[in-house]
Amino acid sequence: MKASPYYQETGNEIALYEAAYAARLPVMLKGPTGCGKSRFVEYMAWRLKKSLISVACNEDMTASDLLGRYLLEPQGTRWLDGPLTTAVRTGAICYLDEVVEARADTTVVIHPLTDHRRQLPLDKCGVTLTAHEDFQLVISYNPGYQSVLKDLKQSTKQRFVGFDFDYPAPAQEARIVATESGLPMDTAALLVRIAEAARRLKGHGLDEGISTRLLVYAATLMQRGVAPVEACRMALVRPLTDDADIRATLDHAITAVFA
Amino acid sequence: MKASPYYQETGNEIALYEAAYAARLPVMLKGPTGCGKSRFVEYMAWRLKKSLISVACNEDMTASDLLGRYLLEPQGTRWLDGPLTTAVRTGAICYLDEVVEARADTTVVIHPLTDHRRQLPLDKCGVTLTAHEDFQLVISYNPGYQSVLKDLKQSTKQRFVGFDFDYPAPAQEARIVATESGLPMDTAALLVRIAEAARRLKGHGLDEGISTRLLVYAATLMQRGVAPVEACRMALVRPLTDDADIRATLDHAITAVFA
Amino acid sequence: MKASPYYQETGNEIALYEAAYAARLPVMLKGPTGCGKSRFVEYMAWRLKKSLISVACNEDMTASDLLGRYLLEPQGTRWLDGPLTTAVRTGAICYLDEVVEARADTTVVIHPLTDHRRQLPLDKCGVTLTAHEDFQLVISYNPGYQSVLKDLKQSTKQRFVGFDFDYPAPAQEARIVATESGLPMDTAALLVRIAEAARRLKGHGLDEGISTRLLVYAATLMQRGVAPVEACRMALVRPLTDDADIRATLDHAITAVFA
Amino acid sequence: MKASPYYQETGNEIALYEAAYAARLPVMLKGPTGCGKSRFVEYMAWRLKKSLISVACNEDMTASDLLGRYLLEPQGTRWLDGPLTTAVRTGAICYLDEVVEARADTTVVIHPLTDHRRQLPLDKCGVTLTAHEDFQLVISYNPGYQSVLKDLKQSTKQRFVGFDFDYPAPAQEARIVATESGLPMDTAALLVRIAEAARRLKGHGLDEGISTRLLVYAATLMQRGVAPVEACRMALVRPLTDDADIRATLDHAITAVFA
Amino acid sequence: MKASPYYQETGNEIALYEAAYAARLPVMLKGPTGCGKSRFVEYMAWRLKKSLISVACNEDMTASDLLGRYLLEPQGTRWLDGPLTTAVRTGAICYLDEVVEARADTTVVIHPLTDHRRQLPLDKCGVTLTAHEDFQLVISYNPGYQSVLKDLKQSTKQRFVGFDFDYPAPAQEARIVATESGLPMDTAALLVRIAEAARRLKGHGLDEGISTRLLVYAATLMQRGVAPVEACRMALVRPLTDDADIRATLDHAITAVFA
Amino acid sequence: MKASPYYQETGNEIALYEAAYAARLPVMLKGPTGCGKSRFVEYMAWRLKKSLISVACNEDMTASDLLGRYLLEPQGTRWLDGPLTTAVRTGAICYLDEVVEARADTTVVIHPLTDHRRQLPLDKCGVTLTAHEDFQLVISYNPGYQSVLKDLKQSTKQRFVGFDFDYPAPAQEARIVATESGLPMDTAALLVRIAEAARRLKGHGLDEGISTRLLVYAATLMQRGVAPVEACRMALVRPLTDDADIRATLDHAITAVFA
Repeated sequence: MKASPYYQETGNEIALYEAAYAARLPVMLKGPTGCGKSRFVEYMAWRLKKSLISVACNEDMTASDLLGRYLLEPQGTRWLDGPLTTAVRTGAICYLDEVVEARADTTVVIHPLTDHRRQLPLDKCGVTLTAHEDFQLVISYNPGYQSVLKDLKQSTKQRFVGFDFDYPAPAQEARIVATESGLPMDTAALLVRIAEAARRLKGHGLDEGISTRLLVYAATLMQRGVAPVEACRMALVRPLTDDADIRATLDHAITAVFA
Repeated sequence: MKASPYYQETGNEIALYEAAYAARLPVMLKGPTGCGKSRFVEYMAWRLKKSLISVACNEDMTASDLLGRYLLEPQGTRWLDGPLTTAVRTGAICYLDEVVEARADTTVVIHPLTDHRRQLPLDKCGVTLTAHEDFQLVISYNPGYQSVLKDLKQSTKQRFVGFDFDYPAPAQEARIVATESGLPMDTAALLVRIAEAARRLKGHGLDEGISTRLLVYAATLMQRGVAPVEACRMALVRPLTDDADIRATLDHAITAVFA
Repeated sequence: MKASPYYQETGNEIALYEAAYAARLPVMLKGPTGCGKSRFVEYMAWRLKKSLISVACNEDMTASDLLGRYLLEPQGTRWLDGPLTTAVRTGAICYLDEVVEARADTTVVIHPLTDHRRQLPLDKCGVTLTAHEDFQLVISYNPGYQSVLKDLKQSTKQRFVGFDFDYPAPAQEARIVATESGLPMDTAALLVRIAEAARRLKGHGLDEGISTRLLVYAATLMQRGVAPVEACRMALVRPLTDDADIRATLDHAITAVFA
Repeated sequence: MKASPYYQETGNEIALYEAAYAARLPVMLKGPTGCGKSRFVEYMAWRLKKSLISVACNEDMTASDLLGRYLLEPQGTRWLDGPLTTAVRTGAICYLDEVVEARADTTVVIHPLTDHRRQLPLDKCGVTLTAHEDFQLVISYNPGYQSVLKDLKQSTKQRFVGFDFDYPAPAQEARIVATESGLPMDTAALLVRIAEAARRLKGHGLDEGISTRLLVYAATLMQRGVAPVEACRMALVRPLTDDADIRATLDHAITAVFA
Repeated sequence: MKASPYYQETGNEIALYEAAYAARLPVMLKGPTGCGKSRFVEYMAWRLKKSLISVACNEDMTASDLLGRYLLEPQGTRWLDGPLTTAVRTGAICYLDEVVEARADTTVVIHPLTDHRRQLPLDKCGVTLTAHEDFQLVISYNPGYQSVLKDLKQSTKQRFVGFDFDYPAPAQEARIVATESGLPMDTAALLVRIAEAARRLKGHGLDEGISTRLLVYAATLMQRGVAPVEACRMALVRPLTDDADIRATLDHAITAVFA
Repeated sequence: MKASPYYQETGNEIALYEAAYAARLPVMLKGPTGCGKSRFVEYMAWRLKKSLISVACNEDMTASDLLGRYLLEPQGTRWLDGPLTTAVRTGAICYLDEVVEARADTTVVIHPLTDHRRQLPLDKCGVTLTAHEDFQLVISYNPGYQSVLKDLKQSTKQRFVGFDFDYPAPAQEARIVATESGLPMDTAALLVRIAEAARRLKGHGLDEGISTRLLVYAATLMQRGVAPVEACRMALVRPLTDDADIRATLDHAITAVFA
């Protein structure tokens, strides 16, 4: 068995997920970029001793990218299972990351898998698979993104139970940053203070707050000897925005903490 | 023969469907998400001892996905029937779920099947099939969704007889929830009371009411030991909406019932 | 020879069609959904002892769907005639139903067939066919549908002689409904009265009137023992509209007649 | 040699075309639907003893439809010349009917053919053809149609010399109608009077006037025994318009002449 | 060696081009339709003794049309170089005519060829070509056409040195017209006077002025015996515009000169 | 080893990049056209002794262009790695130039490569690659271009550390221009003065300032004997703009310096 992936529980989400998995209920993970949704599903798959198959969804993805396709070979065409079909056959947890980005045919494909039928019709093969008893479907969804034009239909949403994710509490986030970067706890806590300031700008010039991942980046650069102000500019400011005012506000927060 | 699928009649829809099937009239099932349309057609297929072939329609589906396509094999191309063609040949009931999502070519393909001709032209094979005498076409349609841009044409609509579906009456819905989840009837009735409150919000912040399916999800989680308020939030609130006001209103309804 | 298809003449359209066919003039049939255009062309083909090849046009149909395509076989590619090419070669009547739904390349393909040339260029084969002397082209067209965006070009329209179709006169429509369903004439006449009321709503909430086909559906259900009001709701109301006011008006017309 | 196609000169267009052909200048024929542009180019090809290759352009036509494509055969892929390539190789006159309907790649393909180079690059074969010395390009263009969105670019237009076409003068048009239908000259003249009335409606409810072709249709039906008013409605009114006012005006003109 | 193509220098563009070629700088030719840009690059290629490969760009052209593609053959797929790849390998001058018409992937493909790298990545072959030392890229661009929607990006523009082209000075243009058509100089000068009048209408009803090419067309027709006014209408008026006022103005200019 | 590519450091970007590379953090290079971003990554790859694989992104590029595709061969289909897959397998630095131009599926493909997973799922092969330990992803991004419609999503941005690039300081830019063109330093400094004037027009009629690359072009032409004013017009004015006012302003700056 692989070593346990690192995951810090923030509430009772582990027990709740175990209950959902026990009933094989489809699960929807909601929350902002880089707050740990992918880590959580990796951790749960490890904990439940199930394989995990992840798919990063995008608007050019077709149903064939999930289900599979025919390949041409010397002996004629051969069917190659896609990641969803593999998960359905082998009893893995299938994680569709940012499913709302996918086109309509991708999201409808999961309908018969997410009601009492638990079936996957492979029309191109002329067969309908019944899901392995261990199979579960998990999707992620970032509520900050969805517009009227691009949202899941209610007939899709009403097939899932939901988990809300958010940035960890300050002490816990500092511990994550310190653990992942090797930076001392007290310095990591300073980075979290900058993130807290930046997250208050969400909706006032920033589309999203600074993610935990970017804090780990800044901490990693500092561990490698980059000056704190420089490391914060590289990891916490420049990737996020080109707006001069917002950059100035963030720079001010950084120098207030580190200079 | 398979065991009877679970279905609770809410009116005289079984007899009416039998009359429509006896005359092989094409059938349109109308109603909101998760209120039992798919279950009804599964039940009727079982009752009439016919095969059922279901297709979840989507906007990227082409006529070929219904009719079939040529596969390349060592001996050249081979034709593979699609689900509609299979149903037409073998005398199955073909159920096109959410047909309005499909592209125009999909909906026009069913025209010659749904008038006195009962024929399916397979232009790519150069043949026209006459439907097996047991074949029937059933489509579903969610009136809450249709916009001016995406609706069936009158020349398609006027080929079907219609059935209206809605959420079951409270006592009946509680019985369904209890049967499917194992929860006691009186607790199931509490969940139905929450759904009734939520359904009054339709058009006032919610696009659709809470489906019976989600009530079964909440009940299933409670059966697995999840606290009622937590189970309701997971199954009845988070999947539906991210609007803070609507969430508060729903939370209030939940705590009024369970806390 | 097949038995005569059922067709009730409403004017002198049979003689006029025979004159148009004698000169092989291309024909355009105009009129609302389900009023008998397809039946008329079937009847005329039977009467003139010509084959009929029908194509339900749609917006995803390409010129290849009409003309034909290459199939890959062990001996290389093989050409397969499409329905229009078959009709041109064999001298059939080719009926393009709702041709305005087709894409531009489909409608332009028929230009050289519908002027003095009577030719069909098959560019993909490198040949130009001259139509069999019995070949005739017939198209249908629903004037209620056409928008500025989707209409035939004048250069296409000015290649046809036109026939106007409408719902039959009441006595005649009752006779059609009775003949096709087996219902007594006086009950069929009651259904026609409901249709007359509904057709007055066209343009005042209904896009199209109730078709003769739907009356036959209602009559068929009544013949199978369904109560008249129930049969009318299934066949005449639910498929047409979800507007509560229009539904109430139609229900009122039904109960005034049958309750 | 084939019999001379029927063509009535209306000015000195034959001599002018011969001068343009002698210098192999590309030619653009302009004028309304059904006024004889296609006939003229057929006649000139016959007169100049050159082959004519006609292509009805449409908005889904690709450059490959003009140039040619590779076919898969047992010996691998084989190139099949398209109609333009055939004309370029064999020295035919290539007539692109309604070229403005074609997509951009079709119109740009003709650029190197229509300047001093007279070349056709076949990029997919890796060769550039120099046109046969007899090759000439002719396009047609209906000025009534062009919108800002769909027009030839100046860099395309400035590669042609232009001919204007219009409906023939009344006496001449009557002679054409009589010749093509067999109707007596004086009756044909009555049909032309109706057309003159209708053409005054252009821009006042009619997009285009009645074409000479439709007059020939009406005359043909009358020759086959159809009553004049009926024949005119079939050929001159119904194909053109569904507007009740315009139909009444046209009917009035018809009955004024024939009733 | 081929005979020198005809080109009349209007300034010192030949020496400037030679300097740009000596440093292999990419070149952008700007100017209106038919003023000699293509001729200039043909002439320079001849003068520098380099091959010239021209591509008429269009909005449906893909990167594969420039780079090359795989063909299926009995021995499997075979790569066929596109025109740009051929130029890069063999050291030709590659001339992309009206490059702004091409799609984004076509214009980006030339980026690594037009900076210090001079490389062409052929991703589909898995190789990156370094350009032959004689290779040069030339593009043309008509400033009168570009809209906000369709323009080269600054990151593309800033890879070229530019040449401005315009119609030749009157005496020189008359000499070109006389040389190419065989018409006497003084008559050619009259045609240029008409062109000067027409070019003043640019922006006042005409999108572009009359090109030198069209003057050559008119002169050619006159040389073949067509009357001057008729020749001017065919070559200078009808191809350009259907606007009655502009046509009258141009006719006035023609009769003022020739009648 | 290849000779060192020419790169002039403008701050401490070399040390910062080395820190980012040491931790294998994904890097985003921001700055205007032609200011040296591509050069910097080439230099760093040389300095770190890693291979560099560059891809010029464009809006028609698909995920397959990055990942690879199946080729048809006599022995059946064969997989060909795309440039990103090659970099992931072999431990190269992969540079996606102007990544924001690419379609959504291209940008999402890099997600699992740019978090703790460092994996590349090749769904079409049914495998997931773990990146070689030397692999690093670098993207470039021009902030001046991004509109609301075309921008990286926050969930993509928050996977990178950022570097800001701008035009070099005057003395340094003159040194670059002199080194690359062979022009004397003092003359190169004059060119930089023109660029400084032009860059002040950014946002006042110019979308972007004059790039260092164009200064090198002008200097190269001058080195080849082209007069300074002429060289500046060719390299610094004509490629940038067709606006007469801006051209006059730029000409004024040029003559002020060189005339």
